[in-house]
Amino acid sequence: MSGYRVAVVGATGAVGTRMIQMLEETSLPIESVRLLASSRSAGKQLKFNGQTITVEETTPESFEEVDLALFSAGGGVSKQFVPEAVKRGAVVVDNTSAFRMDPKIPLVVPEVNPEAMENHQGIIANPNCSTIQMVVALEPIKKAFGLKQVVVTTFQAVSGAGQRALNELEEESQEVLNNEAVDPQILPAAGDKKHYQIAFNPLPQIDVFEDEGYTHEEWKMIHETKKIMLGEMNDSAIKVTATCVRVPVPVAHSEEVYFEVEDQNATADDIRRVLSEADGVVVQDDPEHQIYPQAVNAVGKKDVFVGRIRPDQENEGSFHMWNVSDNLLKGAAWNSVEIAEKLHEQGLLHL
Amino acid sequence: MSGYRVAVVGATGAVGTRMIQMLEETSLPIESVRLLASSRSAGKQLKFNGQTITVEETTPESFEEVDLALFSAGGGVSKQFVPEAVKRGAVVVDNTSAFRMDPKIPLVVPEVNPEAMENHQGIIANPNCSTIQMVVALEPIKKAFGLKQVVVTTFQAVSGAGQRALNELEEESQEVLNNEAVDPQILPAAGDKKHYQIAFNPLPQIDVFEDEGYTHEEWKMIHETKKIMLGEMNDSAIKVTATCVRVPVPVAHSEEVYFEVEDQNATADDIRRVLSEADGVVVQDDPEHQIYPQAVNAVGKKDVFVGRIRPDQENEGSFHMWNVSDNLLKGAAWNSVEIAEKLHEQGLLHL
Repeated sequence: MSGYRVAVVGATGAVGTRMIQMLEETSLPIESVRLLASSRSAGKQLKFNGQTITVEETTPESFEEVDLALFSAGGGVSKQFVPEAVKRGAVVVDNTSAFRMDPKIPLVVPEVNPEAMENHQGIIANPNCSTIQMVVALEPIKKAFGLKQVVVTTFQAVSGAGQRALNELEEESQEVLNNEAVDPQILPAAGDKKHYQIAFNPLPQIDVFEDEGYTHEEWKMIHETKKIMLGEMNDSAIKVTATCVRVPVPVAHSEEVYFEVEDQNATADDIRRVLSEADGVVVQDDPEHQIYPQAVNAVGKKDVFVGRIRPDQENEGSFHMWNVSDNLLKGAAWNSVEIAEKLHEQGLLHL
Repeated sequence: MSGYRVAVVGATGAVGTRMIQMLEETSLPIESVRLLASSRSAGKQLKFNGQTITVEETTPESFEEVDLALFSAGGGVSKQFVPEAVKRGAVVVDNTSAFRMDPKIPLVVPEVNPEAMENHQGIIANPNCSTIQMVVALEPIKKAFGLKQVVVTTFQAVSGAGQRALNELEEESQEVLNNEAVDPQILPAAGDKKHYQIAFNPLPQIDVFEDEGYTHEEWKMIHETKKIMLGEMNDSAIKVTATCVRVPVPVAHSEEVYFEVEDQNATADDIRRVLSEADGVVVQDDPEHQIYPQAVNAVGKKDVFVGRIRPDQENEGSFHMWNVSDNLLKGAAWNSVEIAEKLHEQGLLHL
């Protein structure tokens, strides 16, 4: 056998189609690819490396003779089928929130905590998109200067809410331009009671509201950041607070990250130097020439772009940075495939 | 004479047209309105209270027999003509950055520091839009609990850059929806070298870059906030840092304001109570029913809408809030007319 037998669950979705593309580009040896989805999408045909593959309905038996299964079809599908895949010997990289907060399951960003996968028991959780791009940039800063606190404000793309949300942004935008009424059905959260216009209108709600007035997305950023960077979702060694906002952008999240380091002598130049040498980070930071990361430039790229690095003039050791990344790639599909590459490199994935 | 003779400079612009509307709604007694603009716009006809008024070119003599002049035609026009208006006995409310940082000139938000106008010498400066809506909400919090620090991230509407920027957003949005190329000419800053797409793309640059990697807009928020709330642009009694981002929204700025109060016992409920009693503020904060301020709902209103008030779980005394206001009204035209009303009430405006 020349490579892994891979299954993609949720293959027809916004992330699933990017997973197929990332599998085409990966260095991972691949023997075969099986594309799985709901019964509604079964029968569709997709291409992998020029070869036509028919999408099949996901069943427990879909995972027979699968070495690696990439899941991105929602938490419910993962809860139902991930155990079936593991039972049949597959290693699962799960891009839903189903298992992220389970202390036994590693939550991994390969640039940050690849060592967390060492004793995996068949499931690796892929973090939330907005968390991934932030920790990729924060980890090198933590290593060099220590990290005390993070206050993040996000400008998140609608593709994070799936293909239907993307269609809604496009339709509503045209309606507004035509001076027609809009009829929101999906955003801010498909499962919530009220729906609001996203076209030309930022929405300070991503996912549903939970305790203390925070949304589920905000708690995810807080707890996942701690679990990835410190190993434990409630560890206060790094304080984290978040405000998550959906903006009328199709793809690529932007984030303003305000952070405090332990080393009071650290400068913005030091941070730029450390980030310019970091894996997965591209520094785009030249105010004189108006160079800073932008969503339109990040689409289709695997990196996290960082700029606008500057000190808080009144708080030594506190800085701002502006992070932009393709939420469907580094925030989802690419991080999942990169996890698989690291598993392979570390000898943790078996044929 | 039954009321004030008012001149509006920049009458045909995005803010000027709103100034006319606010003058129609004001309680200020008005005898006559003179509409002034550049030679390019002279001859246009606009309505004031049903009466047709022809726009005249601004000259020094335009201010003969004017009691109150509202300026919003750019810093250059103000520098040239404000002294001419003052020389002729008019009181000027200037909505440009020309005089804001002059220590002798009061920078006023009527809900915050009306007393600063007491010894005015003919010019009252109207602050920057993004600053106004923030300090309206912060001042009652400062009075009740003390205020130590502010970290603000803005989501600013393109109308803050004028009518041409608004047109650019609309044109580019249609081009993107049509899969056509865009050709940015104005944003992020008309006077800067490079121009970038604003349609479906947040731009972390408002105005030009200055010292330490901050933009002029960010320094404005920092220094104006201190001058309005503390009386001095460099007073560190309240620490302020800002990140200003232009988003694809026509009208109404949104702001995530992270702040620390002195009173460590203050709760989110305390802050909501104080804000619900504050002048110019409307609290819209009911997560359970998905109630929070939105740009589309703030357009055309004079208030500052505040919601998403919640504590930072790991820092006692630190909170978030989400502020939204019509940048052309409370951020500009309404604040200017409200300043005139306060001058009148305080006996500081003379017929």
